[in-house]
Amino acid sequence: MTLMRAIITTKRGASAGRLLMRLDEAGIEARIIKDGCEAIVLAEGLINEGKLQEMPEVANFTIAKSQFPLASREWLQEESTVEIAPGVVIGGGNALVIAGPCAVEDREQIVKTAQAIKKSGAMALRGGAYKPRTNPYSFQGLGVEGLNLLSEAKRITGLPIVTEVMTPEDIDLMLPHADILQVGSRNMQNFSLLKALGKVDKPVLLKRGMMATVDEWLQAAEYILSGGNFNVILCERGIRSFEKRTRNTLDLNAVPLIKSLSHLPIIVDPSHGTGDRTLVPSMSLAAMAAGADGLIVEVHPNPKEAVSDGDQSLDLEEFDDLMRSIKRLLSAISGKSLECSKCSVAA
Amino acid sequence: MTLMRAIITTKRGASAGRLLMRLDEAGIEARIIKDGCEAIVLAEGLINEGKLQEMPEVANFTIAKSQFPLASREWLQEESTVEIAPGVVIGGGNALVIAGPCAVEDREQIVKTAQAIKKSGAMALRGGAYKPRTNPYSFQGLGVEGLNLLSEAKRITGLPIVTEVMTPEDIDLMLPHADILQVGSRNMQNFSLLKALGKVDKPVLLKRGMMATVDEWLQAAEYILSGGNFNVILCERGIRSFEKRTRNTLDLNAVPLIKSLSHLPIIVDPSHGTGDRTLVPSMSLAAMAAGADGLIVEVHPNPKEAVSDGDQSLDLEEFDDLMRSIKRLLSAISGKSLECSKCSVAA
Amino acid sequence: MTLMRAIITTKRGASAGRLLMRLDEAGIEARIIKDGCEAIVLAEGLINEGKLQEMPEVANFTIAKSQFPLASREWLQEESTVEIAPGVVIGGGNALVIAGPCAVEDREQIVKTAQAIKKSGAMALRGGAYKPRTNPYSFQGLGVEGLNLLSEAKRITGLPIVTEVMTPEDIDLMLPHADILQVGSRNMQNFSLLKALGKVDKPVLLKRGMMATVDEWLQAAEYILSGGNFNVILCERGIRSFEKRTRNTLDLNAVPLIKSLSHLPIIVDPSHGTGDRTLVPSMSLAAMAAGADGLIVEVHPNPKEAVSDGDQSLDLEEFDDLMRSIKRLLSAISGKSLECSKCSVAA
Amino acid sequence: MTLMRAIITTKRGASAGRLLMRLDEAGIEARIIKDGCEAIVLAEGLINEGKLQEMPEVANFTIAKSQFPLASREWLQEESTVEIAPGVVIGGGNALVIAGPCAVEDREQIVKTAQAIKKSGAMALRGGAYKPRTNPYSFQGLGVEGLNLLSEAKRITGLPIVTEVMTPEDIDLMLPHADILQVGSRNMQNFSLLKALGKVDKPVLLKRGMMATVDEWLQAAEYILSGGNFNVILCERGIRSFEKRTRNTLDLNAVPLIKSLSHLPIIVDPSHGTGDRTLVPSMSLAAMAAGADGLIVEVHPNPKEAVSDGDQSLDLEEFDDLMRSIKRLLSAISGKSLECSKCSVAA
Repeated sequence: MTLMRAIITTKRGASAGRLLMRLDEAGIEARIIKDGCEAIVLAEGLINEGKLQEMPEVANFTIAKSQFPLASREWLQEESTVEIAPGVVIGGGNALVIAGPCAVEDREQIVKTAQAIKKSGAMALRGGAYKPRTNPYSFQGLGVEGLNLLSEAKRITGLPIVTEVMTPEDIDLMLPHADILQVGSRNMQNFSLLKALGKVDKPVLLKRGMMATVDEWLQAAEYILSGGNFNVILCERGIRSFEKRTRNTLDLNAVPLIKSLSHLPIIVDPSHGTGDRTLVPSMSLAAMAAGADGLIVEVHPNPKEAVSDGDQSLDLEEFDDLMRSIKRLLSAISGKSLECSKCSVAA
Repeated sequence: MTLMRAIITTKRGASAGRLLMRLDEAGIEARIIKDGCEAIVLAEGLINEGKLQEMPEVANFTIAKSQFPLASREWLQEESTVEIAPGVVIGGGNALVIAGPCAVEDREQIVKTAQAIKKSGAMALRGGAYKPRTNPYSFQGLGVEGLNLLSEAKRITGLPIVTEVMTPEDIDLMLPHADILQVGSRNMQNFSLLKALGKVDKPVLLKRGMMATVDEWLQAAEYILSGGNFNVILCERGIRSFEKRTRNTLDLNAVPLIKSLSHLPIIVDPSHGTGDRTLVPSMSLAAMAAGADGLIVEVHPNPKEAVSDGDQSLDLEEFDDLMRSIKRLLSAISGKSLECSKCSVAA
Repeated sequence: MTLMRAIITTKRGASAGRLLMRLDEAGIEARIIKDGCEAIVLAEGLINEGKLQEMPEVANFTIAKSQFPLASREWLQEESTVEIAPGVVIGGGNALVIAGPCAVEDREQIVKTAQAIKKSGAMALRGGAYKPRTNPYSFQGLGVEGLNLLSEAKRITGLPIVTEVMTPEDIDLMLPHADILQVGSRNMQNFSLLKALGKVDKPVLLKRGMMATVDEWLQAAEYILSGGNFNVILCERGIRSFEKRTRNTLDLNAVPLIKSLSHLPIIVDPSHGTGDRTLVPSMSLAAMAAGADGLIVEVHPNPKEAVSDGDQSLDLEEFDDLMRSIKRLLSAISGKSLECSKCSVAA
Repeated sequence: MTLMRAIITTKRGASAGRLLMRLDEAGIEARIIKDGCEAIVLAEGLINEGKLQEMPEVANFTIAKSQFPLASREWLQEESTVEIAPGVVIGGGNALVIAGPCAVEDREQIVKTAQAIKKSGAMALRGGAYKPRTNPYSFQGLGVEGLNLLSEAKRITGLPIVTEVMTPEDIDLMLPHADILQVGSRNMQNFSLLKALGKVDKPVLLKRGMMATVDEWLQAAEYILSGGNFNVILCERGIRSFEKRTRNTLDLNAVPLIKSLSHLPIIVDPSHGTGDRTLVPSMSLAAMAAGADGLIVEVHPNPKEAVSDGDQSLDLEEFDDLMRSIKRLLSAISGKSLECSKCSVAA
């Protein structure tokens, strides 16, 4: 009987509120993570496992030692899956490739890119409407206009949309347009944003902070999970090191490490991870070989004229080549399937 | 006549709006940074210096090559000063020591600390009401109650208050309580927050991101300045490195570097910078010897029982000793004065 | 006619010495990199390309702008190959897997390992006799006894030997035993050692310094090449970052980066790169998918009882599984062959 | 009775060899660190403190838990001192400023510098004769000629000489010329060199590796100490971080940290630590305020024409100004004396 955390699943139809009162009487703090027919409750305190098991609302529970209990393998031994759109699933053997430009620039750019990447086999379209830029005088994104163009690209191609949200105030604006809300590297520890996303019913793509350890990253995910939103996808995008030839140091060690610590799906961003178009194909293959559940790749019809990140964007043909290589790789080394999810999208 | 930026001061009473129109006709993008009797306008484009000088609204202008023109020494050669409260000034030879606990815990803790640090010569009180915590289950601060306790400590001691703001939504709540709004290391590139703080009429203490270069930091400051809020104080608080014995690596090189690049005042946080109480006095003296305009030091009446950051907090006596050492140091090596500002507070 | 470097190949039978005199007369400094029937000369100065071409000893030359001209793709567009032992080649489509324990411990350990890894398909045996240890009181290796045991393992299995050399004084001692002389991460900029290895007629495995940029690494290789030893194999083994879950941060970006900058073969050490046995298989596959020419993997018959680095060593079975996966991967994604070199060894 | 280390001082005239035999019988490994009238012996094993105390050769002993027992404060609570030359002492309240050019270039340069820095109050002259250069084609130092010029500067000024040794083979060559043998950052873990320096009767200046933690650094010092050479001076010279504005990140945290962990004197190199002449004065003062025992500063009569490191070298006048500031600082904040040691030199 020491200080510990338990993740409790309630019996069908049992009252999570009553369980909280019962735990409170026993001197144990608890919160409802997810209410519903079978609620999830997180309890913290001097837990007597025998007594906990006897509480009438408790179906089962897991004692978790991790700093990120809901994100940990302690709680869920199997990989969790996230459904992006009807039939488009990531995790549990389903790989997901997201592609598109850094920033939405105009209708032609985004639609043309969407059509091309779909043909090559990508399952979702990325594009920034609100851009976090280091310099206040740089292009900050098209804003609402950009969101509308993304929605149009979705209408035309059927591809679900991934776009970045920078502040809690913008979430409502984005919900009608986005299928996945992306949290950028610089916002990984924007805890107000993470808390707000815990209350949203949309998948969140949580990029690793360029300065974040794997443990900090999983605790950031825990912020979202503990709000009740279990649809979190992690994204390794490179950390900051002393090496100057690459924009960042893509840390592929994080892929098997996350797989051992957490049940959450993890994808890799080789574009920001290297900052160099010529390195993207090799590092994409390496990421999948390391066990990633997918990729997010910057693709632009004309990288040289891109408003931002042109140096790290593939053109449409290069992306098509990459997709072929990835399929060959997956068929050789893993049970992961890129095809079946794509079919679902196409259906 | 190449692409460049100019910071323009308008003539007294001239219309900044009219100047914008005039610049627009000349194909030059411009924005009003600060309106008023003498407005500040930032223009960007193919600027013909001769023609610019001839525009009737233009009093004078500076061509700036820096990525952070308003923060740069190109624009202001002299150190700028920030008035925290009537008579409490930082910059331009006035040093400022801020002290207080990591988190506001209760009335006794914060009032006792405020009284003690005032007696020792500190000029402002720090204390967190909203805490950015790595783990979602850690103590997140007292919130509004904490703000109220800070205000009470101010009523009793007269010390101006420094407290952290984590999201644009909280700014209004904090304005009645805070004399300086602090942006934490993890939010240094929370651009939505920076933009919102550019519209506020309160000094901002901008901590360096733990993985931010000096250039990124000054561009973050530029976000606030370009919104019209010129009262920005920088704070070096340690960067992340491979060394594990210290919580962070306090980068004192940043002090003379910032002094050469920018006119903004810079203070140092030796508490987060080292994470170790025993290193704080030495590094405080080193910071002042390096030319810092002040310090922000964690002080707690009983560090061993602190809710957070106890390992790096000085107790009241240790802080008193430190203040004596700092005064001796300043009298020997610089024209900086710690006394006069303090007197103003006391008055 | 500006200051530049030229790598000159002399005509068959021409005198390199005479060419040096001729260049000296023209005010150009030069040195013989490799003498022989067709010598390689490096010239530096105000080179007039037309006049250089006309010199009777000059067969052809390359103007190199790189800081590492002999290591650069400017000079050699095709990948260079290194022959480790008769028929065992790395580079130019030939992959090489080196395996073995961190330190040679005793006869049974090293012979058993050698036999097992050979059976699994490894082409060379690694094992440390002189160990660079952080602590002076740690086991420093068996020394000469270790070298003798390596030679015995070679006699029994035919596998060529890779072992580390720490100081110029030890080179002569090692030459009869080693087929590849390894330079460890901490010695990557031990320039006295690099110069001495430039004079040796054995391949050198140059590990990347844990804090070295790719440019510094290639310049370290240039020290060896410029001494006349062209048999250099690079080895990425992880760099130091802030992440603490892994011993190092294996920087696979370096693989395609080196491939674009240099003609030298590059292998990857996933054992030191991660410090964690459970991450080794994933990162080995990732390394090969990124385009590496091979691997160096720590293998021990009983990792739990290893004198050093047990945590990161595979056991014999795990290594066998890994080799199977690598073969599957290579057959799917590259023209690289692991089989043919192995056959050569077996022959 | 658990596995531990003891540092034993023998009784006057007792036989250290006999003590070793006695320990061996008790199953304890031991080595003589320093022989002589009162020998120092390091014992490792299952030590029974009572029995150890009873051994007739044992005068007293310290049980050390540190990984660097001889360098630790566990063994020596007081700061140790190192005598550089008759009357020139560092440590224990005596500060030492070493100055001079990166590389010895010619007679005039080194003599003029020596005379000027002596007049300004420096107590030793630095100058490189053998230079560790990243690029094999860069100037590698004057070698023996450089050593001779250093000796001449010493004859003229009386200043002791600090110069770098790169490999064990060069030590004998340097002994007649050098009063302090410097180990450069890139060689901090060149263990063969460290072992050789443990056998030398000259002070060693051990620079921190740019990639080394404080613990690794102290273990590198332990290599020298455990060889019997107790005259080790540590030198913080900047670590590698992501910041690009400075050549390195001078880690002044290391100064109080070393002071708490070790009795060895520590000086600071602000020239390499920043790579920028304009930052050197501020960081020199900061280093002394942090508690350093001295400085090593690059000074050149004409920095713009320096063969290497001109950007970070002070000219003679700048150095003179710096020395005045340092004296003012020391008089204000510490009991350290720069004057008395200088007087000794002058005598």
